[in-house]
Amino acid sequence: MTQIGIVGGTGYTGVELLRLLAQHPDVEIHTITSRQEAGIAVTDVFPSLRRCAALSRLSFCAPDDAPLTECDVVFFATPHGVAMKEARKLTDAGVKIIDLAADFRLRDPTVFERWYKMPHACPDLLAESVYGLPELAREQIKKARIVGNPGCYPTAVQLGFWPLLKAGLIDASQMIADCKSGVSGAGRKGELSLIYPEAGDNFSAYGVAGHRHHPEIEQGLQEMAGQKVGLTFTPHLVPMIRGIFATLYAPLTKQDADLQSVFEECYANEFFVDVLPAGRLPDTRSVRASNQVRISVFRRGALANVLVVEDNLIKGAAGQAVQNMNLMLGLPETTGLTALPIVP
Amino acid sequence: MTQIGIVGGTGYTGVELLRLLAQHPDVEIHTITSRQEAGIAVTDVFPSLRRCAALSRLSFCAPDDAPLTECDVVFFATPHGVAMKEARKLTDAGVKIIDLAADFRLRDPTVFERWYKMPHACPDLLAESVYGLPELAREQIKKARIVGNPGCYPTAVQLGFWPLLKAGLIDASQMIADCKSGVSGAGRKGELSLIYPEAGDNFSAYGVAGHRHHPEIEQGLQEMAGQKVGLTFTPHLVPMIRGIFATLYAPLTKQDADLQSVFEECYANEFFVDVLPAGRLPDTRSVRASNQVRISVFRRGALANVLVVEDNLIKGAAGQAVQNMNLMLGLPETTGLTALPIVP
Amino acid sequence: MTQIGIVGGTGYTGVELLRLLAQHPDVEIHTITSRQEAGIAVTDVFPSLRRCAALSRLSFCAPDDAPLTECDVVFFATPHGVAMKEARKLTDAGVKIIDLAADFRLRDPTVFERWYKMPHACPDLLAESVYGLPELAREQIKKARIVGNPGCYPTAVQLGFWPLLKAGLIDASQMIADCKSGVSGAGRKGELSLIYPEAGDNFSAYGVAGHRHHPEIEQGLQEMAGQKVGLTFTPHLVPMIRGIFATLYAPLTKQDADLQSVFEECYANEFFVDVLPAGRLPDTRSVRASNQVRISVFRRGALANVLVVEDNLIKGAAGQAVQNMNLMLGLPETTGLTALPIVP
Amino acid sequence: MTQIGIVGGTGYTGVELLRLLAQHPDVEIHTITSRQEAGIAVTDVFPSLRRCAALSRLSFCAPDDAPLTECDVVFFATPHGVAMKEARKLTDAGVKIIDLAADFRLRDPTVFERWYKMPHACPDLLAESVYGLPELAREQIKKARIVGNPGCYPTAVQLGFWPLLKAGLIDASQMIADCKSGVSGAGRKGELSLIYPEAGDNFSAYGVAGHRHHPEIEQGLQEMAGQKVGLTFTPHLVPMIRGIFATLYAPLTKQDADLQSVFEECYANEFFVDVLPAGRLPDTRSVRASNQVRISVFRRGALANVLVVEDNLIKGAAGQAVQNMNLMLGLPETTGLTALPIVP
Repeated sequence: MTQIGIVGGTGYTGVELLRLLAQHPDVEIHTITSRQEAGIAVTDVFPSLRRCAALSRLSFCAPDDAPLTECDVVFFATPHGVAMKEARKLTDAGVKIIDLAADFRLRDPTVFERWYKMPHACPDLLAESVYGLPELAREQIKKARIVGNPGCYPTAVQLGFWPLLKAGLIDASQMIADCKSGVSGAGRKGELSLIYPEAGDNFSAYGVAGHRHHPEIEQGLQEMAGQKVGLTFTPHLVPMIRGIFATLYAPLTKQDADLQSVFEECYANEFFVDVLPAGRLPDTRSVRASNQVRISVFRRGALANVLVVEDNLIKGAAGQAVQNMNLMLGLPETTGLTALPIVP
Repeated sequence: MTQIGIVGGTGYTGVELLRLLAQHPDVEIHTITSRQEAGIAVTDVFPSLRRCAALSRLSFCAPDDAPLTECDVVFFATPHGVAMKEARKLTDAGVKIIDLAADFRLRDPTVFERWYKMPHACPDLLAESVYGLPELAREQIKKARIVGNPGCYPTAVQLGFWPLLKAGLIDASQMIADCKSGVSGAGRKGELSLIYPEAGDNFSAYGVAGHRHHPEIEQGLQEMAGQKVGLTFTPHLVPMIRGIFATLYAPLTKQDADLQSVFEECYANEFFVDVLPAGRLPDTRSVRASNQVRISVFRRGALANVLVVEDNLIKGAAGQAVQNMNLMLGLPETTGLTALPIVP
Repeated sequence: MTQIGIVGGTGYTGVELLRLLAQHPDVEIHTITSRQEAGIAVTDVFPSLRRCAALSRLSFCAPDDAPLTECDVVFFATPHGVAMKEARKLTDAGVKIIDLAADFRLRDPTVFERWYKMPHACPDLLAESVYGLPELAREQIKKARIVGNPGCYPTAVQLGFWPLLKAGLIDASQMIADCKSGVSGAGRKGELSLIYPEAGDNFSAYGVAGHRHHPEIEQGLQEMAGQKVGLTFTPHLVPMIRGIFATLYAPLTKQDADLQSVFEECYANEFFVDVLPAGRLPDTRSVRASNQVRISVFRRGALANVLVVEDNLIKGAAGQAVQNMNLMLGLPETTGLTALPIVP
Repeated sequence: MTQIGIVGGTGYTGVELLRLLAQHPDVEIHTITSRQEAGIAVTDVFPSLRRCAALSRLSFCAPDDAPLTECDVVFFATPHGVAMKEARKLTDAGVKIIDLAADFRLRDPTVFERWYKMPHACPDLLAESVYGLPELAREQIKKARIVGNPGCYPTAVQLGFWPLLKAGLIDASQMIADCKSGVSGAGRKGELSLIYPEAGDNFSAYGVAGHRHHPEIEQGLQEMAGQKVGLTFTPHLVPMIRGIFATLYAPLTKQDADLQSVFEECYANEFFVDVLPAGRLPDTRSVRASNQVRISVFRRGALANVLVVEDNLIKGAAGQAVQNMNLMLGLPETTGLTALPIVP
């Protein structure tokens, strides 16, 4: 069995990794760390995981004592800046790394530094790392030692624009991503703005002045377009637990393209990207608790309009990380990721 | 006391009219109709209105028996197509009409017919009626016999684009309105898609193929722009009870305009339109249960980006109807409409 | 592979059966009926089930044409009164039946008749049928041809009181079950009282004058107690999608019993009933989308106080039905039912 | 105009006090304090209060600089332990005090000390203070210098049991209060357990081992009963913003009492306590954002069963505080408190 380490196991991406990996047939969770919960049984912090044999004897251990070099793969479900400091020791020990934070997402360390207000600790490792969007970089991921797992918004927006940019159908200088996220996207932390009476029965925008996912999305779209792009990205907060809904707009440069076919062909072999039949609209619950993305595309006058849904904690985080792990380990890509969405 | 009639009093706009008018100092609810609840006390259907002296003896009466011609003002909180059939009798009797449905919103009867699948019953009355957006048509409303009360989305979108179109700052051929509404916007009716397990913890788009508010918004924007406009309007359903959030985008034609000043000046004398200080973002709860609109404006690269919030049942329906009534009766415009929003 | 029929597949218990059985390793869904959706692909009605190979070619068929006698097991996820009419034909054909409605829950046909306002169609089959609460009737279920699957509230309340009644620790004449259910418990139907603006941000009681689960619970408690019992049962509606929380009270007849040990011993070998460590309190999300029940017990002065949570659609309906099927087919009881709860 | 001070104005009870008092015809908010927001305009912290003339020039001031002795009435919307330290200075200056925390709720300082882990700072002032439940202590409140405003649960539970205890109809040694509260009851603070993904779509119990409202409720019931009482109090957390629902049970000692009449007579002259018609059930939204309490009573076999709803922030906190203020100032009791509930 492949031995797994999870650093920072008490956030939402951490507990989702736990849930997915505990039910994965080919791996074993060897070590999970949490400074705050060190010494505590995993099932004491997350009673929902009780009755899972694979987790029944697992406790959080302090980060400093964690035998991570004994693992085959280590996931970082930590704040930004942690993985890059541990990366060299682990890769030197032959451990593969999947970072769910931003340390290995932005190729240009100066861009990282500008947005995350810290110097990059290992630009050389960043240079060899792979941005883990499997639908676009499957072969590189298979050979990677370090994967930067994409952010939740970037996953949805890039998968939505990719068929259009690939086919050269839109004006890449005028793209709009109007995005909506459930509250779990803000993380598992006691912040006033996230409590039920503040976030419930309410809808708001945030990050209009600049959101850290903006350079990440832009970087991806730029590579797809092969040119500088113009993106307006507006994130909003929705009173729901999970789910991202991305409403994308861009001016069409070819008015007669069959957008539906373009999308269907682009994703014909992608298990996790489901192009809905023409005219159907997606909703976030149709992917709740699953690694699926569902996409609709419409011509709206002179605009292409793409609607994308994903579960921000699964395809937008922990599920995609497991998908990357499967690729890195040479396992079938869907292993452990085929559980059907939970509706209602 | 001015005598008020409400036709169709059991929907959400009906009960909000009841609530607002029962607390209005200058009017008295004379008659309220409901085919289904005829003979039943208003407080039996809406226990929240118990202990309101003004409503304690009021019962629903059947539409056919309703002494509406005894009223000074009659509100129609009915499905589309009802008000236009009753309008002549009432105006002939000197009764003023405020229709919260669509019968008097679209100036062109053929457009009405195309979207509502019924011929217009009184094109002559339609011609003299006024579209009741007070911030744009205050003086006409004061003199009107019939007011078509704007739809919820149209109110938010028009108030958001107005300062930009008035000042000639955007390309009116490429406007986008990405709108989000609470579930009460769909009305008080037992539809499967609206029940809690379907609409809760979920986010979806709808009406992409065409929404009835589209021609209404377009008509308004066209008058503002003085030319044919291009609008892409995408409504979404949010798991919350009340509130509309409109995120508007349009290409700027003048890059150096001071958008904040443009908005502040445009709405300087409008009590119900609150332009937030530069950099602040609105949320729907900040207007919950009030007649307020709050607006933010941002330059986003080459785009203008306007964020508008309103309570869809108040400024988007019943509150605006009362605002119109105040104007038609020569009362101070804010009478009965100054209750502060309910937060949390 | 065991061939499965589902009658009435478009309600919430139906779609949960579909989801669970599609992922069950030992069965194949042969036939699913729906009068309303006949001819429509299952994945057209439930897009969340797209990308499930086992369901990709399955369409709803009209009840009258359904080849149910070709199945090994048929589930009825129908309104009350359907299963009992089909039961004889199916059992004659050697088909096992699991009814998720009430037709085979109440042993006394006159009680059934009183609460469900219809005569029982097959009292003889009712007599041989087994009430499918596996933790109490495992051996009978294994041999049953017809299982009446318990209601959601009855499952929680009976499992909560069972250790106390078994050990003779409470006064069975003064039991109180104060129960709270998510809205999906009311079924997948377009009823006004269930829509988001009515059920959201609201808490209410219902069925105080008499709820159909009352005689079912009472029957179970009576058998446990071996005597007539007194039960006050108050159901409440919670603004959440899934989950039942039962808060149970009963006067202790022995003040010095170690309640925690009594519960732990009673359920020591029950995979699906998890007695929490002393002092811990359950919450419904800790069992969301799983077949788990979690229980806490407290001495509160002279009262025993038991707190029980379950997912009303899983352990309270479809999951328990699959658990019963496993028993009837001689499969390991937990097959297909070990997916971990979804948190957050 | 009566001059008002509010100490601790940034919690939910604080902002509700602001909202209610800003719309009260007979008072003026003179001073509002907040250590954290000192110097900031009230409308910057609570944008929902923008466009309120009465608040437009009001800023928070630091507690130490606050000219509270210039006020006629000071409300404490602070954590427990603050009001009792300021009370002497204020009363000496002739200022009336209404404390929304617990400092003046428990008559016995040793009980206060046991539950709140601090000695009482002014037992003599506690002795003269009045527990501010107007329906039970109207005359004393009118003459009080210091009022301890009841807790949210205690208000609902006491008003629910009062008619039964007054009439001597129940066994006071076996009372059960199964209570459910919206999340705002926990206060406006960034705690992990309160964030949307934790508290949303979830139902839980808490405080089973002991809740601070228990001694407060017990004290009130004891005075009503004129004897020691037995109360089992179980609070639960509901995924909604506002509202308390109390489900009360107690054994009837007289089986033939007409409970409905008992309740109707008891509250015949109470504007804020609405006994529903026989058979009707209350829901929390029917009192949302209002100072109303609604009550139903049922005979359930040998038990009395009372259902009580209130808005925890209004009748359970800020509204009741204003009701007390009205009494203390000799104003009509309902002044500023008659706004109708917000539904939906």
